[in-house]
Amino acid sequence: MQTDETYRYRTVEKHIRAMIENRALGLGDKLPSLRKLATNLGVSISTVNQAYVELERKGVIEARPRSGFYVRQHALRLPRTEATATPMDGPRPVTRIGLIQTVLESVGRADAVELGVIAPGTELLPLKELSRITASVVRDHPERALGYAPIPGDPELIRQIAFRSMELGIPTDPGEPVITAGCMEALNLSLRSVCRRGDTVLIQTPTYYCFLQLLETLGLRAIEIASDPEGGVSPADLDHALRTFDIAACILAPNFNNPDSSLTPDEAKREIVRMLAARDIPLVEDDVSTDLHFTPKRPDTFKQFDEKGLVLLCSSFSKTISPGYRVGWLLPGRFRQKVLEMKAVTNVSSSAPAQMAIGEYLRQGRLERHLKRLRTALEEQMDTMQFHLERFFPAGTRVTHPEGGAVLWLELPGRVDAVELFFQARSHGIGIAPGAIFSTQDKFSNYVRLSCGMPWSERLHDGLRTLGELAKAMI
Amino acid sequence: MQTDETYRYRTVEKHIRAMIENRALGLGDKLPSLRKLATNLGVSISTVNQAYVELERKGVIEARPRSGFYVRQHALRLPRTEATATPMDGPRPVTRIGLIQTVLESVGRADAVELGVIAPGTELLPLKELSRITASVVRDHPERALGYAPIPGDPELIRQIAFRSMELGIPTDPGEPVITAGCMEALNLSLRSVCRRGDTVLIQTPTYYCFLQLLETLGLRAIEIASDPEGGVSPADLDHALRTFDIAACILAPNFNNPDSSLTPDEAKREIVRMLAARDIPLVEDDVSTDLHFTPKRPDTFKQFDEKGLVLLCSSFSKTISPGYRVGWLLPGRFRQKVLEMKAVTNVSSSAPAQMAIGEYLRQGRLERHLKRLRTALEEQMDTMQFHLERFFPAGTRVTHPEGGAVLWLELPGRVDAVELFFQARSHGIGIAPGAIFSTQDKFSNYVRLSCGMPWSERLHDGLRTLGELAKAMI
Repeated sequence: MQTDETYRYRTVEKHIRAMIENRALGLGDKLPSLRKLATNLGVSISTVNQAYVELERKGVIEARPRSGFYVRQHALRLPRTEATATPMDGPRPVTRIGLIQTVLESVGRADAVELGVIAPGTELLPLKELSRITASVVRDHPERALGYAPIPGDPELIRQIAFRSMELGIPTDPGEPVITAGCMEALNLSLRSVCRRGDTVLIQTPTYYCFLQLLETLGLRAIEIASDPEGGVSPADLDHALRTFDIAACILAPNFNNPDSSLTPDEAKREIVRMLAARDIPLVEDDVSTDLHFTPKRPDTFKQFDEKGLVLLCSSFSKTISPGYRVGWLLPGRFRQKVLEMKAVTNVSSSAPAQMAIGEYLRQGRLERHLKRLRTALEEQMDTMQFHLERFFPAGTRVTHPEGGAVLWLELPGRVDAVELFFQARSHGIGIAPGAIFSTQDKFSNYVRLSCGMPWSERLHDGLRTLGELAKAMI
Repeated sequence: MQTDETYRYRTVEKHIRAMIENRALGLGDKLPSLRKLATNLGVSISTVNQAYVELERKGVIEARPRSGFYVRQHALRLPRTEATATPMDGPRPVTRIGLIQTVLESVGRADAVELGVIAPGTELLPLKELSRITASVVRDHPERALGYAPIPGDPELIRQIAFRSMELGIPTDPGEPVITAGCMEALNLSLRSVCRRGDTVLIQTPTYYCFLQLLETLGLRAIEIASDPEGGVSPADLDHALRTFDIAACILAPNFNNPDSSLTPDEAKREIVRMLAARDIPLVEDDVSTDLHFTPKRPDTFKQFDEKGLVLLCSSFSKTISPGYRVGWLLPGRFRQKVLEMKAVTNVSSSAPAQMAIGEYLRQGRLERHLKRLRTALEEQMDTMQFHLERFFPAGTRVTHPEGGAVLWLELPGRVDAVELFFQARSHGIGIAPGAIFSTQDKFSNYVRLSCGMPWSERLHDGLRTLGELAKAMI
């Protein structure tokens, strides 16, 4: 997929983008000549040329015949989404399923421009590698593929996941991982293991809408504390909630929370784990986006600070290797026995061929290389989308500047109703996720989540422009 | 796998077994000469010879040098398990998980002689065919395999299942099937869609222990009505229960109920569906064993008599094609929307490669041929086990004579404690399922369920003998 040459021209591309963002290059300015920039940056002329062609394809610059390349794009990114101070309400039953269902129904419709669902575009998945490995493992081990896998999962995959967790500095007992059908199942099994109907669960807001569906179907009540796009969850807010309410468990996504991509600092994570440990409250950790960090180092997890086995770390390969294989995992800490009971009555065990294939993919050491490429691609796609949002969206729009993950969280100006925008966009074949589905409260009615999984294309360009026009018309 | 020749010698084998069972041949009697029987039955001498060799391998007859073949086996099968009249108790919370867990833990231990778990031996699974098809579908359609499958499942597999259901006379809307990770998940989603914690669910007793686990984890209470090995569930018992208790839903396995293999007559099914429809009570139907019928025709399902969409038919390929692929289905009737909500928050969708492979296996028309071979093999294995049980087990033992399925249900004489037998057998590397786990009541403490999935072998012979000796020693 990606070669050294690709890395080189992307470096040049980033350099130009930085110049535009820093106002070193303004709208309509001419870019340095190929030769000059090649000399300055110590790369070949063809590398610079490739970077310019790429920037032109993405609409950032334009070529004028016999003259050179010029900045076509506005110079600034949108300002950051503002932190929303959250008044803390009492526990409330969750009743968002109707709206969420309506939004999700459009998922199956295969919208022309799908910005509503988080998943890497198929261009970014290891299609050939994983298919080839799948074919070879099922043919080499048909008895293991067709026969029952043990309830906790395929032993080789468990071994690989335990090994990788330990390598990442997450203390993991080699026999601890439980393989699940995606992160959703890990969260489902976790909550069912630590809560009973009627219990109150603390979540951050905004939060992944599937958590709200899950709470609603399990008859759980939610207490929401603020998720700040700049600082994630604050231990002070948690402390206040713990003193005020009878909380049975927490679900938190400390790293690149979906939808606001907030990152809770490692020091705050340690403090949160300590506070919950003091009260023996289980903490369900959503780790699904952590591998998509653009930061040099993978951020820490709550699990790393857990000394009492109270953290249930939930993760999956759905956002990195394959959504369709449905392979996730759970590090259940002290709740392993209960989790296995729940797994047994949910579906006995996970599908063996998918487990074996991903286990072999890990064993062959392919994951880290793939993640490196994927992160680069996602960061670049996010970058390109941000550039165009500024151009297409109404003045006053704000957007997150994530350090990882695969989504942007937009705050539209004024009283734009994002649910209405969702319906209008859908009629144009564009899928988005309206802010209202990410909280039981009404404070995100003018927010929109856009997925950055799709590689840049003319179609995406046109879709974003249409979306911006629809938003402008609603003001 | 199986050829016409195989069918011929099996016919001869059945003929000899029938003669032994009818006392036409007694213990120690000499069998007809090869030539004579070949002439009588109109088959070749080598076919008769093959049948005799097979019967010798299974310990039914023995060869004496220069003399011929002699009946070695006792002539009679064990008498049938007696119907257990069930006093109807009030609803009770289910608290069987501890014991069931203990039994299930031994599953992972790969006992030398596994009679405790129902699954066809790997020799009976289409290992090569399905592995080859899996390899080819993932390589031909990597985007479909790696990308998200729609929540209800892979469209081609849904089409195949709807088509087959209709062919079997089960009225099915083409868009009705929901693909699940095995029958367990279908049952789980069904119960969660039609019940709330604290509700009372009617089950038959004995019943599949996983139903008890499921009820317990969902906080549901059980009302048990008798399952008669000879006649299944009686509409009169159901009527009485409906008049006496407030029942939110039923789970019934009308065809080859696990563990007693009882078959509820089609006329009773119609009556049961009618009675529940009159009260608008949902009926969760466990259809997982129906494809293993030894009867010429597939027995009807409750679903066939359902006019109000109240029946949720749950089934899977785990007992026929592959336990490890985890592919089952649900015909949810009027509860489809609710079931899809539950599927979404359980694991979004089922693993795509397994769905695609089984869809293609069905499309190629391989299922019915495979089922024909599988049924023949299971019936024969069950037959052979019954012959040997009579020889090895204590006098007074009774056993079911199933018309389908893959298990025998043994009633041991006197006060034999089957849980104690379970532990003793385990220490000899033999896995069995003690009767106590199949009911919330204590009436099956001297029952044992034996799986007939393993092809006959010396090891199985020795295991059964050991088991019989252990049982004798306990009287």
